[in-house]
Amino acid sequence: MSSPVHRVSLGDTWSLRMNPDIESERRAPSFDVERLTNILDRGAQNTALRRKVESIIYSDPVFNLQSSHFMTHSEHYEAALHNRFHVQKLAQHLGWQEDGSEFNYVNRALSGAVGLGLQSIFINTLKSLGSEEQIAKWGPLCKTFQIITTYAQTELGHGTYLRGLETEATYDPATQEFVIHSPTMTATKWWPGDLGRTATHALVLAQLICSGARQGMHGFIVPIRSLQDHSPLPGITTGDIGPKMGINHVDNGFLQLHHVRVPRENMLSRFAEVLPDGTYIRHGTTQSNYLGMLVTRVKLLLDGILPNLQKACVISLRYSVIRRQSRLRPSDPEAKILDHQTQQQKLFPQLAMSYALYFLAISLTEFFQQSYDTVLNKDFTLLPELHALSTAGKATISDFCTQGAEQCRRACGGHGYSKMSGLPTLVTQVTASCTYEGENTVLYLQVARFLAKNYLQAQLSPTKRKPLPQSVAYLAMPDQSRCPAQMAADFLLPELYVTAWAHVATRLIKDAAQRMQTLIQSGADQQEAWNQTTIIQVQAAKAHCYYIIVKTFKEAVEKLDREPAIQKVLKRLCDLCALHGILTNSGDFLHDGYLSGAQADMVRAAYLDLLRLIRKDAILLTDAFDFTDRCLNSALGCYDGNVYERLFHWAQTSPANTQKNPAYEKYIRPLLQSWRAKL
Amino acid sequence: MSSPVHRVSLGDTWSLRMNPDIESERRAPSFDVERLTNILDRGAQNTALRRKVESIIYSDPVFNLQSSHFMTHSEHYEAALHNRFHVQKLAQHLGWQEDGSEFNYVNRALSGAVGLGLQSIFINTLKSLGSEEQIAKWGPLCKTFQIITTYAQTELGHGTYLRGLETEATYDPATQEFVIHSPTMTATKWWPGDLGRTATHALVLAQLICSGARQGMHGFIVPIRSLQDHSPLPGITTGDIGPKMGINHVDNGFLQLHHVRVPRENMLSRFAEVLPDGTYIRHGTTQSNYLGMLVTRVKLLLDGILPNLQKACVISLRYSVIRRQSRLRPSDPEAKILDHQTQQQKLFPQLAMSYALYFLAISLTEFFQQSYDTVLNKDFTLLPELHALSTAGKATISDFCTQGAEQCRRACGGHGYSKMSGLPTLVTQVTASCTYEGENTVLYLQVARFLAKNYLQAQLSPTKRKPLPQSVAYLAMPDQSRCPAQMAADFLLPELYVTAWAHVATRLIKDAAQRMQTLIQSGADQQEAWNQTTIIQVQAAKAHCYYIIVKTFKEAVEKLDREPAIQKVLKRLCDLCALHGILTNSGDFLHDGYLSGAQADMVRAAYLDLLRLIRKDAILLTDAFDFTDRCLNSALGCYDGNVYERLFHWAQTSPANTQKNPAYEKYIRPLLQSWRAKL
Repeated sequence: MSSPVHRVSLGDTWSLRMNPDIESERRAPSFDVERLTNILDRGAQNTALRRKVESIIYSDPVFNLQSSHFMTHSEHYEAALHNRFHVQKLAQHLGWQEDGSEFNYVNRALSGAVGLGLQSIFINTLKSLGSEEQIAKWGPLCKTFQIITTYAQTELGHGTYLRGLETEATYDPATQEFVIHSPTMTATKWWPGDLGRTATHALVLAQLICSGARQGMHGFIVPIRSLQDHSPLPGITTGDIGPKMGINHVDNGFLQLHHVRVPRENMLSRFAEVLPDGTYIRHGTTQSNYLGMLVTRVKLLLDGILPNLQKACVISLRYSVIRRQSRLRPSDPEAKILDHQTQQQKLFPQLAMSYALYFLAISLTEFFQQSYDTVLNKDFTLLPELHALSTAGKATISDFCTQGAEQCRRACGGHGYSKMSGLPTLVTQVTASCTYEGENTVLYLQVARFLAKNYLQAQLSPTKRKPLPQSVAYLAMPDQSRCPAQMAADFLLPELYVTAWAHVATRLIKDAAQRMQTLIQSGADQQEAWNQTTIIQVQAAKAHCYYIIVKTFKEAVEKLDREPAIQKVLKRLCDLCALHGILTNSGDFLHDGYLSGAQADMVRAAYLDLLRLIRKDAILLTDAFDFTDRCLNSALGCYDGNVYERLFHWAQTSPANTQKNPAYEKYIRPLLQSWRAKL
Repeated sequence: MSSPVHRVSLGDTWSLRMNPDIESERRAPSFDVERLTNILDRGAQNTALRRKVESIIYSDPVFNLQSSHFMTHSEHYEAALHNRFHVQKLAQHLGWQEDGSEFNYVNRALSGAVGLGLQSIFINTLKSLGSEEQIAKWGPLCKTFQIITTYAQTELGHGTYLRGLETEATYDPATQEFVIHSPTMTATKWWPGDLGRTATHALVLAQLICSGARQGMHGFIVPIRSLQDHSPLPGITTGDIGPKMGINHVDNGFLQLHHVRVPRENMLSRFAEVLPDGTYIRHGTTQSNYLGMLVTRVKLLLDGILPNLQKACVISLRYSVIRRQSRLRPSDPEAKILDHQTQQQKLFPQLAMSYALYFLAISLTEFFQQSYDTVLNKDFTLLPELHALSTAGKATISDFCTQGAEQCRRACGGHGYSKMSGLPTLVTQVTASCTYEGENTVLYLQVARFLAKNYLQAQLSPTKRKPLPQSVAYLAMPDQSRCPAQMAADFLLPELYVTAWAHVATRLIKDAAQRMQTLIQSGADQQEAWNQTTIIQVQAAKAHCYYIIVKTFKEAVEKLDREPAIQKVLKRLCDLCALHGILTNSGDFLHDGYLSGAQADMVRAAYLDLLRLIRKDAILLTDAFDFTDRCLNSALGCYDGNVYERLFHWAQTSPANTQKNPAYEKYIRPLLQSWRAKL
């Protein structure tokens, strides 16, 4: 089999020898792991191309991942630029196309430690908001790195609430220029990646003022650093915002603009333009300029957010079949910790979720691909649902990946706290996704507004209402008041648990609507009633998101009927995902008697049974993600299971062990000897 | 008022000018903040002493906290030793007693960035497990720093499961020595603090073998580094285990022992000794040697774990009255984010929990102080409850503090991801407490065993059973089958919600016992039945812990009847804590109909109302913790509320801005200019 050889790539001596405790997990697999890898790659040809790219990267000594655990903030930044520089040379040499899959695979191979990531966000936004001429002008400059770009939206004082952005772009018809200005300290652009020490051009999001009127947020291309010597251009104050919890290879930066002038042509003008005399013409809706963000959100899911959870699952599950702790009975040897029910409870729901969210992200990406072009061509019919789904997807995927990765990390006990486990980096990286590109609570509230609107539609008689978007069609379906399950096995019927989730989502959306109604009847206005129900609205939106997760997973599993063995194991994960969600939120199901206490006990019985069944496929299900050892960069998670050898030997290379300890002469020796002075 | 002056201590220019958005929060306080501070300090004289120590530390230019955000791993280590070195000089100069409160206050002032913390763990263990002669010999050596010590228990292959430790201490009667040895790689001691680069002596926990018999884990004092030149002694391999997610000022280390000999007197022998001829004599129980760990667990709570959550609350709440986002109605200015219901939902339960856990830790500490001496004197009557309570306390406090600190961090949006917010450091620090000193799941299972045992006792007729320990007395109380609440206000009756929690805990403990019974009836043995119910056991233990939290908080509030204003605001927090717990676990209350759906809605109504009431006291409740600006070391959390100024100016001091960017010449310039080469 070629794939294990592929996965083992650290080139150290232990990799040749499998730890028997992990080897036994791979004996007699119940499904073809390689086939599942192909499915996750969306085709065997993609698996082959990915592995080819990975082997090119790993065989090139210029890329070195292993030492990254010991790097400082600045070293991370420099290493990422180093990688990007060499990737570009390689790409040119090998003739990789900018929009080919190779770059994605490079990113995966190097675990995202590749600089200038904002270049593609800039390009995507340019394609979404720019006119054809603007795309033709700026696109090639980016692709050949004649300029290095960033996307400057967030400010010191404002993030997700875009209407609050303070940066102004005032049109001056006399010179046909925009004057871009930060009127206050809080207007300082803050957080854009690659801005701190690197970018030469920024796509600045600013409030357009022309002919004295404010026209909302628009995008402007602003040169910020000299192409000659990289110094800030006149009127520009820029720098790095300092160290963060993670992602320190990216130089997030700040930018203050002091009456900086750019030509009229620098305003991105697919959806709006300013004529030479200052006349403002809108070609889209007021929200059109948010399209760039929407694109970024969707693209992030599969490549930026999800792999963190998948890797955390690989690492923690592999470690859990090596680590042994306590005897299940006095005469036995100590058990693998994965044989403890509580460890399965920690990890299998995460494993199930990592598959569930994968299918969710795929389905979202496909819907996006179908609808994006129509939006670009100014047909906005699908935009509300695209917005609601991408918002829900981003919030849900980032929330569950963050929660799950930390759960996996803690499930590794003390060793999960060591950077060499790879887990702290995954956790501190993925937790950023809960706030970047839209803070999740605000996103859930946007989903809630979409739900509230469609719930009201669904209350109209079928003849009067517009057809509901497909993702909320359940709001108009006939509802059961009681779950029909009569025994634990009934809860393994996908139709049954999808219906249960639809019921709970509907009930909570209705509950939120009724609470608002009550408040309005007692004198509150619409706005106030909304503000007084946001906690309930968020709860409803989350239930809806969980319904979408379960439904999408169920449908993906159904489509695998030509792969019965794989279908069988994935169905178990789907069942687990649905039932774990019900148990975690059992109050929502018991509240109106939809489930009885006895039925909740059946759910628990079915759930405990699933843990036992998933146990034997757990390692294979993580192998199927096909992350290489180098990409995992984890002493706990290598394919061969030689955990302790690697922890020990990697530690030896820490600068703390290879360098002299300056604190000895300065503090330790004087302290130890001070008692002598006292004699 | 002296306290605000005290709190504002960064000495920068903004501190003289209050941000009006925070100033308004402090107008017309509903209670005396200074009095609450005194209560939290356990006496006004303690507040005074603490502030005196803090002002000594802060007025001494040798201590510098502010730049810690930009330090490397090694710099953190060195800074902590630097601080410790100067603290010792100061203490000697000022005549501070080793066991006085001053050292605790120094630790607090310097946010724990003081090296050689293991010295006190060593001393506490010595006092717990050592004979009087041993205490007399080694105690003074530690106190005068003639030796620097560590506590070496955890191994590469074993942590919480102490019976699995592999290090061996074999008694050799010929020389009257113990031979301490690491028989395997996994026996390598791994994680002990101060071991990596600093300690000269280790308290090594090892399996005692004498006269051919294994006697379980005992403690041995082993010299590991030369007192002359600090080199490892013969037979010792030691070093640093590498960077961690946090706490990088501590040099956690590894230690391999190759047949290292120590004299017979070096085995700690309060509870067991080995006679010259190798006869083993036990003075305590088999578990007595775990007493050292128990002491460490209790001491950690108040000074090590809890402040992380308290500080996270201070920072996030202060930031939440400065940050403004979106308009609650179109005509209003943007609202403080703390006026959003969803933000209150994120933060107030954490604030309530930070008070609840404070009272829990205090009550535990008091119970410990009452019972420790009796245990030392070999009266083990109170040990089971002391063990169960300290185990429950450690698991609960570390879990809720970790969860809460991360919740606070995320509630600050993007800025919570900046290290300068202070929040990432708090989160990555506190999360370690979920695994160190006993992994929490294992601890919950230990609590569960205590509960299971006492539940069986409680089933006996009152005449036959032993009196139940006070913390589980509720198991023998008459139980209600329905909650009597008839309206939302009823849920503000402490008796009512404490009873509700007792009911749920009892039901879950009973459920776990019955599940075991069922399994045993269908053929499983005791051991297997336990293993098949651990998920349910953990759930029951957590409900018990929550009951203890709520009950302890309620009793603490009741005792404040001479401070009605303070009692009133703290009661609201207590109510919130109880009700938030019910809502989060509503399934457990609805399952058997103890609460109806309508009652759950009443809980929610009462809860939403509490959020509104707590809102006006929120800032004052965090002020009462009386953390100085220096101690918080947060750009978001300073007393004066000048968030944006500080973020901006602190960022300017980042090395990324003050040093040249070496990546420019190496990568950026060549990349930007490579297109020219192609022309």
